[in-house]
Amino acid sequence: MNEREKIVLDEEEIPKEWYNILADLPTPLKPYIHPGTKEPVKAEDLAPIFPMELIKQEMSTEKWIPIPEEVRDVYRLWRPTPLYRAKRLEEKLKTPAKIYYKWEGVSPPGSHKPNTAVAQAYYNMKEGVERIATETGAGQWGSALAFGTCLFDLECTVYMVKISYEQKPYRRVLIETWGAEVFPSPTDRTNSGRKVLEKDPECTGSLGIAISEAVEDAATHEGTKYALGSVLNHVLLHQTVVGLELKKQFEQIDVYPDYIFGCVGGGSNFAGQCYPFVGDKLRGEKPDLQVISCEPMACPTLTKGLYTYDFGDIAMLTPLLPMYTLGHDFVPPPIHAGGLRYHGDAPSLCKLTHEGYMGAVAYHQNEVFEAASLFARTEGFVIAPETAHCVKAAIDEALRCKETGEEKVIFFANSGHGHFDLGAYDAYHAGKLIDYEYPAELVKQALANLPKV
Amino acid sequence: MNEREKIVLDEEEIPKEWYNILADLPTPLKPYIHPGTKEPVKAEDLAPIFPMELIKQEMSTEKWIPIPEEVRDVYRLWRPTPLYRAKRLEEKLKTPAKIYYKWEGVSPPGSHKPNTAVAQAYYNMKEGVERIATETGAGQWGSALAFGTCLFDLECTVYMVKISYEQKPYRRVLIETWGAEVFPSPTDRTNSGRKVLEKDPECTGSLGIAISEAVEDAATHEGTKYALGSVLNHVLLHQTVVGLELKKQFEQIDVYPDYIFGCVGGGSNFAGQCYPFVGDKLRGEKPDLQVISCEPMACPTLTKGLYTYDFGDIAMLTPLLPMYTLGHDFVPPPIHAGGLRYHGDAPSLCKLTHEGYMGAVAYHQNEVFEAASLFARTEGFVIAPETAHCVKAAIDEALRCKETGEEKVIFFANSGHGHFDLGAYDAYHAGKLIDYEYPAELVKQALANLPKV
Repeated sequence: MNEREKIVLDEEEIPKEWYNILADLPTPLKPYIHPGTKEPVKAEDLAPIFPMELIKQEMSTEKWIPIPEEVRDVYRLWRPTPLYRAKRLEEKLKTPAKIYYKWEGVSPPGSHKPNTAVAQAYYNMKEGVERIATETGAGQWGSALAFGTCLFDLECTVYMVKISYEQKPYRRVLIETWGAEVFPSPTDRTNSGRKVLEKDPECTGSLGIAISEAVEDAATHEGTKYALGSVLNHVLLHQTVVGLELKKQFEQIDVYPDYIFGCVGGGSNFAGQCYPFVGDKLRGEKPDLQVISCEPMACPTLTKGLYTYDFGDIAMLTPLLPMYTLGHDFVPPPIHAGGLRYHGDAPSLCKLTHEGYMGAVAYHQNEVFEAASLFARTEGFVIAPETAHCVKAAIDEALRCKETGEEKVIFFANSGHGHFDLGAYDAYHAGKLIDYEYPAELVKQALANLPKV
Repeated sequence: MNEREKIVLDEEEIPKEWYNILADLPTPLKPYIHPGTKEPVKAEDLAPIFPMELIKQEMSTEKWIPIPEEVRDVYRLWRPTPLYRAKRLEEKLKTPAKIYYKWEGVSPPGSHKPNTAVAQAYYNMKEGVERIATETGAGQWGSALAFGTCLFDLECTVYMVKISYEQKPYRRVLIETWGAEVFPSPTDRTNSGRKVLEKDPECTGSLGIAISEAVEDAATHEGTKYALGSVLNHVLLHQTVVGLELKKQFEQIDVYPDYIFGCVGGGSNFAGQCYPFVGDKLRGEKPDLQVISCEPMACPTLTKGLYTYDFGDIAMLTPLLPMYTLGHDFVPPPIHAGGLRYHGDAPSLCKLTHEGYMGAVAYHQNEVFEAASLFARTEGFVIAPETAHCVKAAIDEALRCKETGEEKVIFFANSGHGHFDLGAYDAYHAGKLIDYEYPAELVKQALANLPKV
C-alpha cells in the first residue's frame, strides 16, 4: 500500500471550537486606541459597526470559543480540507525533507476567506442585521462575504476598488453571482466617496477609500453592519478552524512539523493555520518549531516595518492598532499578490513576531512565480500569487535540507487557487513582472509621521 | 448527528479497474468505418496516431480493464471526489426529492477531463511517445492534457481554436502554466492549417480545423501521437472511474438513484458517471432507472439529430462513427457552453439512447444559467455552463416531485467549475444571452448530405 497522498478527515471532525491564542500569550495584547479620545477602545465604540458577539470575540481572552452548529453546517460544504504530502514536489527537488500542505482552494470562493465570512454572516443574521457592507481590493474577501451572506439570506454591499472592478471583472461577477451588489469605489453613495470624487473625478480608488465608504455605509444605515476580512482578532479566531483540523491530521499520521510557512497580508490566513502550533511553542512544548511569515519585498511589513501603533486606514478613522507598519499612507507598488499589499498586520501576529516566537522573510515576485510554476508542474494545482510566497519558502528550506541531508518536516499553508490570477501567470511567462523592493527611505519617511500614543 | 453533507471515500477505494460497457451491450456496437476504404477500421489503421494499448482498449469487449498503479497514483491528487447531498437546494425548492451530485471540480484542471488525460499520457509515455498533439476549443481538454502530460514528462502541443485563444486567454495561460505549447489554429505549422489560411488569412478557426491540424502533426512527426478528449470508447472507459466511485458512495449510504442526469457534449463525462448504473439496467436489475442526457437546444444532437454513420470532423478525415449527428458540417451557434457544441456524440451513448435505455432533453441557455445561479446561491459552487444543463434537469424533476409528493432520488453529474466562464455569467446577469434553437430545416439539410455506408 502506498503512503497516503492526502489525509482527509470525516465531516464530524470539523472542530467544534475555535482557538483563541490571546489566552496563551505570555503578556496581554496591548489595547486598540480610539482615534479621537486616544483612550483604549471599548465595546460600545465598536457597536455601531459590528454585532455584539463579534465584539465580544474581538476582546475575549477565553481559550476556546464554540463554533455554532449552523456555521459548522456550512463549513461541511468544503471542510475538512485535505492535508497533502507533496511527494511529487519532493521527488523533483530530490530533498530528504517531507513537505506537506493544507489545501483551502476547495472552498466555493477558492480560499480560506469563507471560514470567517460564514461566521460573520451568521452572527450578524442572529442579531437581526439585514445587510452587511464591506470593501474589497482584488475581490477575494468581497466574494467570500457574498458567498457567506447569501447562505444566511443577508443582503451584502461591496465597495470594490475601482481599478480592480474595471481590470479584474471576474471576481466582481463572482460577487454578483452570489447575489451581492458591488460598486466601484469611490462612489457617490457616501460622503467619503463624494469628497474624493470632488477632488479627483477620475480617481481609481484604494483600499483605504473603500474601507471608509463601507464603514460609513454601515454606520449611517439602520440594519446594516460592517465586516472586515483580516487583521482583527475575531477574524483570526475564525480561521483557526484550519489549524485545528491540521493538528488532527498531523496527529493521525504521527507527524509534527519542524517548519510552518504561510503568506501574510493582514495575517488571518497564516494565523489560522499556525496558531494552534504556536500555542504549543508558547507553552514551551515545542521550543524548536519554526513559524515563518512570508511577504513580498514590495510590501515588507514584518521585515522592514516598525512595531508601533498605527491606523488601519489612510483616512485615520479606524482605531490605532499595535502592529508592524509601513505607515498608514503607504502606497503599495502594483504587484500581483493583491492580498499582500496591506501596510500593517494583525496585532497578535505582530506581537508574536516582535517577541521572537515567529519569524518573517520577504521575496520578489519573479522568484515567487517561479515557485508557483514548479508547484503547478509537480503537484498540479495552480495557486494564488499570495500563496506562492510560502511555497517559495518551503522549496528553499527543502533545498537547504538537500544540502545538509536533514529529513525535516516542512509545512506550508496552501491558502487558495489562482484561477482568477492567470493574467499574472501570463505576465510572468512573458517576462513582464517587475521586482519592486520598497525603498528603505520611504519606510523611514512614513514612520516619521506616525502618531504618538 | 446531522446527516452527512458529503460522502467521501478513502484513497484506497479509488477503483482498480475501469468498467467497459461494451461487454454488457445487448448487441455489439457497430464498427467504425474507414473513410477511404469504407471497410471496418482495423487496429493498424489507428496505429499512426494512437499508442497500441489505447487502440486495444478502444476495441475491447472485456468488461473490466485494470487501471495502472501509476495512473491511480496521479488520481490520488484529487480522487476520490466527494458525493454531495444538495440539502440547501432541496430546502430552497421545498421538494421531497433527495438530490445528490458528484463534484469533479476539485481536480487541478477543474473538471472530469483529467481522468482520461492522465491515463492517455501514461500509456503514451509507456510506449515511448515523446510528444502528444491535440486540439482544444475553449480549452478544457487542452488544459487537462497539458496537466496529464506534464506529470509524465511528455511534451504537449495544443492547437487551440483561434477565436478562443484570443477571447478566452485564461485557459491558454493554464495550458502554458503546465508547460505545454499552444498555438492559435489555423496555424502555418500544418498543411491543413496553411490551406485554410491561404483561402482566408483572417480565419478564426474551428474545432474541425484544429482536429485536422493535431492529427496531421501526430501523423507526420516521429515520436508524436494524437489524443482525443471525448467520443471514443477508450475515453469513456477512463471516465468510468467516476461512476464506479459513485456506486461505492451510494452503497455506503444504501441509496440507489431513480434519475441520473448529466450534460452531453461528446458524451464522456456523462458516460463515465452513469455507465456503471446503465450496466445494472442492461442486465435487467434496475428496469425503472431513468438516465437522461442534457444538451443545448442550440446543438440538439440527441433530441433532433439522426442516428446514422457520420464523420467526426468537418474535413471528413476521421473514421465514420455510428452515432446521432447534426451533420459533420454543423456550425454551432455561439452559446456559452463551449463543451456541448459538437455535432455528434459517443457511439455507445448514441446506441443506448437509440435503443431506449437512455433518454435526452434539451434546454435554452437562459434557463440553464438560471439553474446555475440558483445552485450557486444554495450549494455555493459556481459551475460550468455545460454542467448547468443537468442541474436544470434535476431542478425540474425535483419540482415535479414537489407536485406529486414523490421522494425520488435524483442524481446529477457535477462535472466542473465555471471559474473560467464568468464572462458568460456576466452576460446572463446583464440579460444579454440569446436563446438559439437550432432550426429543424438546417438539420434536415445537413442530414441529406450524409455519406452512405
